Amino acid sequence: MILISNDDGISAKGLDLLTRIALDYDHVMVAAPTTHQSGKSSSITFDHPIRAHLIEKTERLTRYAVSGTPADCAKLALDQLLEERPRLLLSGINHGYNSGNSSIYSGTVGVALEGVFHDVPALAFSYGSFDPKADMPECEPLIRHIIERTLEHGLPRGVCLNVNFPPLGEGGKYPGLKITRSAAGKWVKEFEHRVDPHGRDYYWITGYYENDEPDNTLNDTYWLDRGWVSVTPIFADQTHYPSMPLIEEQLKL
Amino acid sequence: MILISNDDGISAKGLDLLTRIALDYDHVMVAAPTTHQSGKSSSITFDHPIRAHLIEKTERLTRYAVSGTPADCAKLALDQLLEERPRLLLSGINHGYNSGNSSIYSGTVGVALEGVFHDVPALAFSYGSFDPKADMPECEPLIRHIIERTLEHGLPRGVCLNVNFPPLGEGGKYPGLKITRSAAGKWVKEFEHRVDPHGRDYYWITGYYENDEPDNTLNDTYWLDRGWVSVTPIFADQTHYPSMPLIEEQLKL
Repeated sequence: MILISNDDGISAKGLDLLTRIALDYDHVMVAAPTTHQSGKSSSITFDHPIRAHLIEKTERLTRYAVSGTPADCAKLALDQLLEERPRLLLSGINHGYNSGNSSIYSGTVGVALEGVFHDVPALAFSYGSFDPKADMPECEPLIRHIIERTLEHGLPRGVCLNVNFPPLGEGGKYPGLKITRSAAGKWVKEFEHRVDPHGRDYYWITGYYENDEPDNTLNDTYWLDRGWVSVTPIFADQTHYPSMPLIEEQLKL
Repeated sequence: MILISNDDGISAKGLDLLTRIALDYDHVMVAAPTTHQSGKSSSITFDHPIRAHLIEKTERLTRYAVSGTPADCAKLALDQLLEERPRLLLSGINHGYNSGNSSIYSGTVGVALEGVFHDVPALAFSYGSFDPKADMPECEPLIRHIIERTLEHGLPRGVCLNVNFPPLGEGGKYPGLKITRSAAGKWVKEFEHRVDPHGRDYYWITGYYENDEPDNTLNDTYWLDRGWVSVTPIFADQTHYPSMPLIEEQLKL
C-alpha cells in the first residue's frame, strides 16, 4: 500500500499524476484535502472535527477527500483510514516550488514529515509552476527512479526527501538530480495593503523570496535555476546543535 | 521596540505576563491572533485577507488583534505595522509545552522562526500547563535573565530559542536551565472516532506524545520532567546534512 496526499487539494492535477505513477507499484490510498491548503506548514486542526469523504474505491485505489490540513490528512489516514502501515508516503506533486528555507511553510513537506513521525519513508514532490493546468510529464521518469530506490533502500531514520522539479515543459529532459541543502533566504514585501469599500484596511499576503546566497552550489535553488532536479533531505528535529555551547555560555546563571 | 505575539490569542494570560515583563525593557507592540491558534505551525494565510484591529495605544504599548495565524501576525507587524525593526521578538508565554520534536506543530515556535527570517533575535516561551488561568509567576526571573542576555549578545544567525518551563506553581523555584535538544518522539492514538446524530463519522484530533528516548540527558523532556527549564536552539533550515552522501549514493542515476 502506498499513501498519497498533497496541499493543493483532491482535485489537483499533480495529485492525479502521482497517483497514476504510484498505482504501477502497489495499491494506493489517496487522502487529500477537500480544498486548497497551500502554506499550511505542519498545521493541525484542534478547533473542529475532521471528516473523511470516500469518493472512490476500486480494488487497487481508494480516494478520500479530508476536511483538514495536509498534515491532518496524512495523520488521519495513518491512524484511522488505513488497515496496514503503508510502504511509502508520497506528497504532491505540488503546483509551485517548495525550495529554499521557505519550505518551512509548505503543506507538501508537512505531509512528508508525518511519514517521518510514523516511520514511513516519505517523498515530497513539487514542480516549479503555479499553473493548475500544468501537465508535468517531464517529471515522471525521475519520480519513478526515486520511488523505486526508496522502496528498495528506505530512508535514514528521521529523514524525508523534498524533491523539486524545474518546469521544462513537454519533451524537456533533465540533465540529472542534485542532492542539495535548502537555500537560505527570506520573503520580502510580504503584504499588499488595500482599503475596502467601507474605508477599512486589509492586507493580502504576497511578496517574493529573496535568496541570500544565489551562488552557493550546495543550494537547491542554484540547481533548479539551471534546470536540474533538487533533492533535499529534510529532518524533523529543528534543534541547531552547533550553537548549543555558545547559548550555554551566553545564558550561564 | 520589542514585538510580541503568541498562538493562544490576544486574550491569553501568558501574553499579558510577557507584555508586562517586556515593558520594563522597551516600548512594546503586541500583534497577536484574534482567536486561539494552537497547532498552526508556520502556517500562513493565502485564501483570505488579514485584518489588524488596534485595540490599545499608549505611549509605551500598542496592541493589535490580527485575524490570521501566529506567523501571519509576526509577518504583518514586521512588514506593515512597525515603523522600525524591533530589537527582539517574543512569543508566548504559551499555555502548554512546546517540547520534543512536536514543537514542529507549534504556532509559538512559528512566531519565533519569523524572527529568524527577519534577522530579529527571537525567543519562544511555553509553560507546561494547559490551564488558561495559570499565573506562571515562577517563570518571571528566568524570562528576564534570557531577555537581558539576548538583548546584550543577540543570537547566532538563523537560530531562535525555544524555552519551556515546567509548572512549579506559586513559590516554586527552578534549579536552573539546561541547553537541550528536542526529544525524538511521536504522537500516537491521534484521533478519536465519533458518529454524529445523523449517523456520519467524524474525528477529533487527540492522542499523546510518546517519547522515544526518555532517558537521554540531552533532551528537553528529560530536564522538564525533573523540574528544570529547557532552552533549545531552533534552526529554520530543515536540511539533514549528515544523510546527504548516503542519499547521493542511493539515488545515483
